[in-house]
Amino acid sequence: MSSPSSARIDRLQRRAASEESVIGLAGGLPDPRLFPRRDLGDALFRALHRPNEALQYGWPEGELELRKWVAARLGARGASLGPEHVIVTSGAQQAIALAAHVLFSAGQTVGLSDVSYPGAIDILRSLGLQLISWRDRACGYYLMPAIGNPDGQSMTEDERRDLVGRLALEGSTLIEDDAYVESRFDGRLARPLVADLPERVLHVGTLSKVLCPGLRVGWLATRHPALGRILAEKQQADLQAASLTQRIVVEYLRGFRFERHLLQVRRDYQRKAKRLRDAVLRELPEFRVDEPRGGLSLWLEHRDPVAGFDDLTLLAAAIRNGVSFDPGRSFRPLESRQLGLRLCYGSVPEGDLERGVTRLAEALREVRGPVSSRNA
Amino acid sequence: MSSPSSARIDRLQRRAASEESVIGLAGGLPDPRLFPRRDLGDALFRALHRPNEALQYGWPEGELELRKWVAARLGARGASLGPEHVIVTSGAQQAIALAAHVLFSAGQTVGLSDVSYPGAIDILRSLGLQLISWRDRACGYYLMPAIGNPDGQSMTEDERRDLVGRLALEGSTLIEDDAYVESRFDGRLARPLVADLPERVLHVGTLSKVLCPGLRVGWLATRHPALGRILAEKQQADLQAASLTQRIVVEYLRGFRFERHLLQVRRDYQRKAKRLRDAVLRELPEFRVDEPRGGLSLWLEHRDPVAGFDDLTLLAAAIRNGVSFDPGRSFRPLESRQLGLRLCYGSVPEGDLERGVTRLAEALREVRGPVSSRNA
Repeated sequence: MSSPSSARIDRLQRRAASEESVIGLAGGLPDPRLFPRRDLGDALFRALHRPNEALQYGWPEGELELRKWVAARLGARGASLGPEHVIVTSGAQQAIALAAHVLFSAGQTVGLSDVSYPGAIDILRSLGLQLISWRDRACGYYLMPAIGNPDGQSMTEDERRDLVGRLALEGSTLIEDDAYVESRFDGRLARPLVADLPERVLHVGTLSKVLCPGLRVGWLATRHPALGRILAEKQQADLQAASLTQRIVVEYLRGFRFERHLLQVRRDYQRKAKRLRDAVLRELPEFRVDEPRGGLSLWLEHRDPVAGFDDLTLLAAAIRNGVSFDPGRSFRPLESRQLGLRLCYGSVPEGDLERGVTRLAEALREVRGPVSSRNA
Repeated sequence: MSSPSSARIDRLQRRAASEESVIGLAGGLPDPRLFPRRDLGDALFRALHRPNEALQYGWPEGELELRKWVAARLGARGASLGPEHVIVTSGAQQAIALAAHVLFSAGQTVGLSDVSYPGAIDILRSLGLQLISWRDRACGYYLMPAIGNPDGQSMTEDERRDLVGRLALEGSTLIEDDAYVESRFDGRLARPLVADLPERVLHVGTLSKVLCPGLRVGWLATRHPALGRILAEKQQADLQAASLTQRIVVEYLRGFRFERHLLQVRRDYQRKAKRLRDAVLRELPEFRVDEPRGGLSLWLEHRDPVAGFDDLTLLAAAIRNGVSFDPGRSFRPLESRQLGLRLCYGSVPEGDLERGVTRLAEALREVRGPVSSRNA
C-alpha cells in the first residue's frame, strides 16, 4: 500500500468489495462454504475446556502440540525436523516477514520467480532489497516451489535439483513459502526443499488456504541457526500467536476430519479452477492461461507484449461492468510491461465464474476501444 | 531475549514455570480464574454464526464494530476519535512495536519512566534508540500514564500537564501505553493523553489484562498523520489481527456483561494486591513498596542502594526455595545498580501469596549470607 498505484488498487478493490453486485475475482480468498464450521465449533468447545491454555498467555514459540504436528507433517514429506525447529506465527505472512527481516540486509539481492506473492514482494522491497530473477545468483531467495501464487504452478524436478545444488554451493538461504501445498488438486504433496537443506531453507506454512484464514495460524520450520533470533523478533513483534486459535487448531487436527476435509477442498477447487479456465479459454482468447496444479487462482498473461492499455484501466472498467480481479503489476517483482491479471476462483460461487468472465470480456472490449479491436 | 542476562532469565523462568511446586510471582499473567469462560463461549458460538466474518480474511485495520467500540470507550474518557483513527492490532505489543518502528529512527532519544515495560524497552533498544528519562527533553516518549507496569502507579495531574505542555512545545510524539487502565481498582479511568493531543499521542490499548490475553486483540488509536504508514506496516507484518478473536470480542462486548466483569476483576486484584503488599511489608522490610492503583504486580526496591547481591542470584535462590519473581533489571531503561524486583499477584492463587513471600524471605536470607545479615 505504499506506492501510489497500490493505494489506487486498494481504493478500487475496497469499493468493489462493498458492492454486492460485483463478482469478486480478486483477493485470493478461500471459499467460506468450505470452512468446516461444525468441526471448528466442536474444536472451540473443547479448547475452552482448558482455559488456562486457550485464554492465557503462552510461550512465544507457540503450542508444543501444534509444533509437533507441523514437524510430523513435514516428516511425512521427507523432512527431519522436531518441534524445537518450529515457531508458530500469526499467519504465514508473519513467518515471511520475520524470516526476511532477520536473514536479509538492505542492498542484498533476493531471487524470485517472474510472478510472485505481493505480500512477500512488499516486505522485500520495504527492506531495501534488490529483487532479481531466481535464475540468477542471489544472496537469498523467496520461492513457492510446491504451488505458486498467482499461477498455481509447481517447480519441475530439474528446477528443484538445480536450486538445491546452488543453495548448497552458494551458501545462500531460501524462504520456501509452502502456503498452498495442501490445496494441490492431486494430493501429492511435494518433498519440501527444507528436507534437503534444513539449515539453509526456512519453510513457511499455514492452514489459511485449506482450513480458514480467520485463525491466523502459520509457522516457520527450519534448522537454520538464525531461528533463535527469529524467535526473539517474534516475541518483540506480538509476543505470541493467539493461544485460543492455536488450541482450536490443535483440537481440530486430532482425528481424521482434516484428511477428509482436504479431499473435499481439493476436489471443489479443482472443479472451480477448470470451470473458470474453460471460460477464459472461450471468452478471453487473447490471454494465455496455464492449467493450475493447486491454489486458489489463475494467472492470465496477454499474448501481445504491448496490449495498448494497462491493468488498472482494465480494472476500473471491469468494476464498472460488475467484476473485479487483481491487477498483474502487484505480482511482478521485476519491471515488466506485459499485461497480466489474477483471477481467483476460491471464494466466488461456482455459478458466478462464467458470468464474471463474460463481464471481464465486455470490459476488455471497452478499454481496447474501436481502433485496436479493428486491428485485432 | 537478546542479551546474555535475559537469555538466562528466560531459562530460569521456563524451568520455574514447569515446576508445579514453584509459586509463580513472575510473568505478569492475569488470573485465569477470572476469565469469563461461559460468556466467551457464548460469544464464540454467536461469532461462528457469521463464518464469513469470523473465519475469513478481513481488512488490515480490523473489524469496524470493534474500532467503533474503542473510539466510543475513549470518547467516554474525553477523546474525540472515530473508528477511522483506530487500528486493531495483534495485542498491545504489536501496537507498540509498529508505532515505535514507524515513528522513531536509530540514534534518537526516547524518554521513559525509571521503571517500565520490558517488552517496550526491548523494542526501543533493538531500534537503536537512546533511552533517557522522560523528565529530560527527548525526540519521543513511551509512557504508561494511567497505570504503570511494573509499579501500578499513575502519573500525577502536574506531571500530566507538564508532559502535555512539553509535547505541544517540542513537537514530539508519545506512545501512551494504556494496557492496564481498565484494571484501575477505583474504576476511575483517567483522561487519556490522546484526548489532549490526538495528533501527537499514539494511544495503545488491549483487553488482555482484564478479559484474557489468549485472544491477542489490542489497538492503536490516534490522529497522528503516520497512521496510514502504520497500517501499511501492520499489513506487511501479519495482514490483520485474527478475525475470529476480533468477532468474539465484538460479540462479548455487546450488553452489560463487560462492566459487571470489570467490577469483579478490579475488586479481586485490589484484594490480592493488598494481601501481597501486607506480606511484603511484614516479611521483607528491607524493600520499599508503594501501594498500587491498579495492574497485576508490585514493584519492590531495596532500601540499600548497594544490596550486596544481584537480582539474578536472588532469583536462582528463590526458585530453589519454591518461588519465582521478575528480576528488576528487565524493567530499567537506564543503567542502575539499585536492586529491584516485580512480584505479580495476578495469576497466583490467593492463598499462595503469603507463602510465596515467606519463601522469598528465606531465599533472601540465603543470598545475603551470614556476614551481611550480621551487619543488617
